[in-house]
Amino acid sequence: MTSAVYFCVDGGGTRSRGRLTDADGVTLASAVDGPCNPNTDCARAVASVMALWRRCASDAGHDPEDRAGITLAIGSAGLNVMRSRAAFVAACPPFGRILPINDGYAALIGAGGGKPCGMVAVGTGVTARRLLPDGTNFFRDGWGWTVGDRGGGAWIGVQAFRHALEVKDTVAPPWPLADSLIATICGAETLDDILANPNPERMASLTPFVLAAADEGDPVALGIRNQAVDHLVALARALRLEDADTLYFSGGLAVPLWPFLVERLGRPISEPLADAMTGSYLLASGRAPAEVEISV
Amino acid sequence: MTSAVYFCVDGGGTRSRGRLTDADGVTLASAVDGPCNPNTDCARAVASVMALWRRCASDAGHDPEDRAGITLAIGSAGLNVMRSRAAFVAACPPFGRILPINDGYAALIGAGGGKPCGMVAVGTGVTARRLLPDGTNFFRDGWGWTVGDRGGGAWIGVQAFRHALEVKDTVAPPWPLADSLIATICGAETLDDILANPNPERMASLTPFVLAAADEGDPVALGIRNQAVDHLVALARALRLEDADTLYFSGGLAVPLWPFLVERLGRPISEPLADAMTGSYLLASGRAPAEVEISV
Repeated sequence: MTSAVYFCVDGGGTRSRGRLTDADGVTLASAVDGPCNPNTDCARAVASVMALWRRCASDAGHDPEDRAGITLAIGSAGLNVMRSRAAFVAACPPFGRILPINDGYAALIGAGGGKPCGMVAVGTGVTARRLLPDGTNFFRDGWGWTVGDRGGGAWIGVQAFRHALEVKDTVAPPWPLADSLIATICGAETLDDILANPNPERMASLTPFVLAAADEGDPVALGIRNQAVDHLVALARALRLEDADTLYFSGGLAVPLWPFLVERLGRPISEPLADAMTGSYLLASGRAPAEVEISV
Repeated sequence: MTSAVYFCVDGGGTRSRGRLTDADGVTLASAVDGPCNPNTDCARAVASVMALWRRCASDAGHDPEDRAGITLAIGSAGLNVMRSRAAFVAACPPFGRILPINDGYAALIGAGGGKPCGMVAVGTGVTARRLLPDGTNFFRDGWGWTVGDRGGGAWIGVQAFRHALEVKDTVAPPWPLADSLIATICGAETLDDILANPNPERMASLTPFVLAAADEGDPVALGIRNQAVDHLVALARALRLEDADTLYFSGGLAVPLWPFLVERLGRPISEPLADAMTGSYLLASGRAPAEVEISV
């Protein structure tokens, strides 16, 4: 390889993805590995990145030990914490260049191809971010399932589970779905097991159940879905986009909630043009504004 | 010691207490030690119990190795899980008798002296329990801070913190307390640190702040306090007490919320007659009905 090569990584709490691209953004190799969140486990994050690197390099016929000409552009959960960002760079074996990026910013750049836009990501969690015409960006929510991430999968699951427990406590009126919802979240475990280790993925696993019940007209499920849409609409509005700006919705819940979001927002919404790894490539190759997060 | 001696333990997630009493319930010695929750750490729970035992025995002039004539009556967090109860009994060194008790039941018996009554415990968490005339008992809530414990300290703190984050996200109107509330919960840490490890004690630490603001007429804080009182009143009513039954309120939030609870409930409430260790003694000595939990 003679010209610039970009090794782009998208890191998350349970899974990481890597992609090797040439200077034009053409994919040379790609790989998937385990968790990569430098804020929760820096050594594990570095190990995942290096496993991705070795696989991509081998597949592309590149010597994995030769990293001098390579730019590592990594958008990862946990890199929003500056202390963790510095620790990751210090712990990572050397590359020609290492560009650590807030994962939300990499996704925003990927979604809009580096042009000013807004993006709401709604999966288990929820966050929104806007790229302004001057190249700065700001975010809304993403505070986590216990105190934020309003309208996301974990939030929906918690509302439904809370309500089912209120019914069990006889402080809410009977709800035909209460018992089956508790059975669904427990699976083969007991309620004690679930309550000893409640986590956002587990709570979000109730969301398909709630959305299906809303489709069938169940009033409690409809109320939860409406409130989730309210939250997501308020979050999108908090980005204060101009009419000419594009608003992207991404994440696993964007598809099932799409029609309700469009109706309530009263403006078109779009699917992201590309993913966070493409965003990292655009940033590393100078095709998008460098990350400058501001408070607005 | 010739007659029966009772070694009573009250175990919790951060602290355990032990009390040695004679057959008439007179205290011979008492001690405090670390965490005791057999469901989260059985070995640690046994270690705490044995540390309490050695100190109580020494203080009472009893050989700590002579446990044959001693009844260990332990009401502890985590003993509501039958698997953990069995594991604790198996792991604990032998006593003359070991009586493991649900901590909420020990508190209920202590509160009412073993007579039929209802009890709502409201501190960081919330749970309610009733002893019926036939000696059976049932509970309401206590589901934990992420999905239940409605109206407790962690619940109040989460509502306030959530609202402050909504203000920061510009999806809720300005609230003069938002910044100071976030600063209060963060202390010397950053928001990222708090969000990486949100725990119920931390959330509950906001409660005095919220209650003080409510006293001064802040409308958001008043709304949160009113909703907490609503939850606690609904929980107390879910015990379906007769007019002749006594309703006890215990825990750190019972005192500041007392006047609002009395007003909304429209019936008198009482302070517990005694604590959970006294409850354990009453149970072990046959002065109160043995634990029989039912679903109602």
